[in-house]
Amino acid sequence: MKITVIGCGRWGSFIAWYLDRIKHEVTLYGRTDSKKMNEFLTTRKNSLLTLNDSIRLTTSLEEAVNAEVIVISINSQGLQGLMDELKSYNLENKIFVLCMKGIEIGTGRRLSQIVEDNMSSTCSVAVWLGPGHVQEFCRGIPNCMVIDSKNEETKQKLVDSFSSDLIRFYYGQDLIGNEIGGAAKNVIGVAAGMLDGLNLSTLKGALMSRGTREVARLIKAMGGNELSAYGLCHLGDFEATVFSEFSHNRMYGEMFVKGEKYDSLAEGYYTVKALLDLEKKYHVELPICNAVYDVLYNRKEPKETLDKLFTRSLKNEF
Amino acid sequence: MKITVIGCGRWGSFIAWYLDRIKHEVTLYGRTDSKKMNEFLTTRKNSLLTLNDSIRLTTSLEEAVNAEVIVISINSQGLQGLMDELKSYNLENKIFVLCMKGIEIGTGRRLSQIVEDNMSSTCSVAVWLGPGHVQEFCRGIPNCMVIDSKNEETKQKLVDSFSSDLIRFYYGQDLIGNEIGGAAKNVIGVAAGMLDGLNLSTLKGALMSRGTREVARLIKAMGGNELSAYGLCHLGDFEATVFSEFSHNRMYGEMFVKGEKYDSLAEGYYTVKALLDLEKKYHVELPICNAVYDVLYNRKEPKETLDKLFTRSLKNEF
Repeated sequence: MKITVIGCGRWGSFIAWYLDRIKHEVTLYGRTDSKKMNEFLTTRKNSLLTLNDSIRLTTSLEEAVNAEVIVISINSQGLQGLMDELKSYNLENKIFVLCMKGIEIGTGRRLSQIVEDNMSSTCSVAVWLGPGHVQEFCRGIPNCMVIDSKNEETKQKLVDSFSSDLIRFYYGQDLIGNEIGGAAKNVIGVAAGMLDGLNLSTLKGALMSRGTREVARLIKAMGGNELSAYGLCHLGDFEATVFSEFSHNRMYGEMFVKGEKYDSLAEGYYTVKALLDLEKKYHVELPICNAVYDVLYNRKEPKETLDKLFTRSLKNEF
Repeated sequence: MKITVIGCGRWGSFIAWYLDRIKHEVTLYGRTDSKKMNEFLTTRKNSLLTLNDSIRLTTSLEEAVNAEVIVISINSQGLQGLMDELKSYNLENKIFVLCMKGIEIGTGRRLSQIVEDNMSSTCSVAVWLGPGHVQEFCRGIPNCMVIDSKNEETKQKLVDSFSSDLIRFYYGQDLIGNEIGGAAKNVIGVAAGMLDGLNLSTLKGALMSRGTREVARLIKAMGGNELSAYGLCHLGDFEATVFSEFSHNRMYGEMFVKGEKYDSLAEGYYTVKALLDLEKKYHVELPICNAVYDVLYNRKEPKETLDKLFTRSLKNEF
């Protein structure tokens, strides 16, 4: 298939690398002013991988949209902005695949909803979620991921044409659950990093158990399947987030509580704000999200705030 | 309370240390021929902790049973044997607390069932499960655990008198789920070690997601609450098992696939056999347990066997 990947960060560039590896015709798009794109244009490399010559590189959105499938991997809060830019191309019969995790602040929209709100009815949208480190995929270590879409035909087509010995795809069956679970995972990752930074790593067990629980409650309240919180999109991604040195969200949480400098805010920083909007809207309690928000936005004392989460004891688990 | 701990291994000795720390009157029992007991009798120490002089040490079972609460922390397959020994004391009005994880091979009995089958109706039995490393507790790092019992009064009493700033107890509400979840955790721990040994650690995310799923199915089939698999007893204990250098089960799995020598078999080695009995009895599929069993008992090739677990792709997640 003719596929364009929009976004040349760690995941966008990996997806281009991967789809080329399994013999698709791939274009990678990055903005003219993107440092990462300029590095690829000059050397075809970043610190993790080298892009084959068979991958076309472009900074022209007009060239980029000339594809059957458009994979998007950018920061979540920038998705509506990209949609605004894409509108002028009157795209028809495209499949959009979102390889990104987040929820829009202010509106509480899931990312697939943002695309739907902006696309023609001849197009369809899917999400690609789940565990795996770019670092390990590049060394040939396989993993399982999930593709979900409201459009069954699109889902089937993508699973069939994207599966390989390196990535085994499951069919998602709960778009709400998979998107919320995927997004919320980054917040649990930030919380995990905070525990690490406070030398309370041992509480990551309780964090996993209580964290999945509150995400399951939210998914259920939104009309999804609560079990999705325990699927590949959320729990299945904890190895790569809660326990990994590679996770940007975990590292951000750790550096935050240690008062160290970090290059850029993590997705979880934005997602936690959007999750609190959803908490209000759907009347569910999200104590871990609230604690992370309080630490990041209200500068509450991290140790006391996180510790309190787990001292709510002497009560029932479920 | 007057409490005896039977079993002076890593957990038994820690429990004695902990209950003494929160001002209970504690006796620790070990067999006359136990190396560990003899070390305590000589030095009051093991490699992790030192027992206060306020803890009475005994090798006499007759002395040991003179207590209101009897905590048992021994190997699971030896529990019926201990019950046989205890029978001669005609114990009345005792509370038994099981701080151990397993299922009896051959009978498929949960550990609380073994005690029930052997005790007077004036006695009650509870289980004490959940995350935490002895190493970290001893350094004052807190965690959450769970106490469950069919007897509400016993459960309440134990949670009230065992809780402290170091261990925050939740009330368990699903004895079947908590016991099966706790036991099965050791099998997932062995599987995690195998993945580590095969340099497939990145698949531990999928292992967590798929592993909890099959344990949830078994718990449900047995009449428990499937969500218990996602509680402190199982998922909540993964930090201490799936990701910890301290976990005996994880280490055993790793050394097994590397062909290295290990001092003693892990609980998961026995539990997996018992779980396959339950699989047949309750007609559920336990693919991860089967893979671990095949590697340990049928000497199947580990990489192929474990890899196959996650290549069952192109299908639905739930």
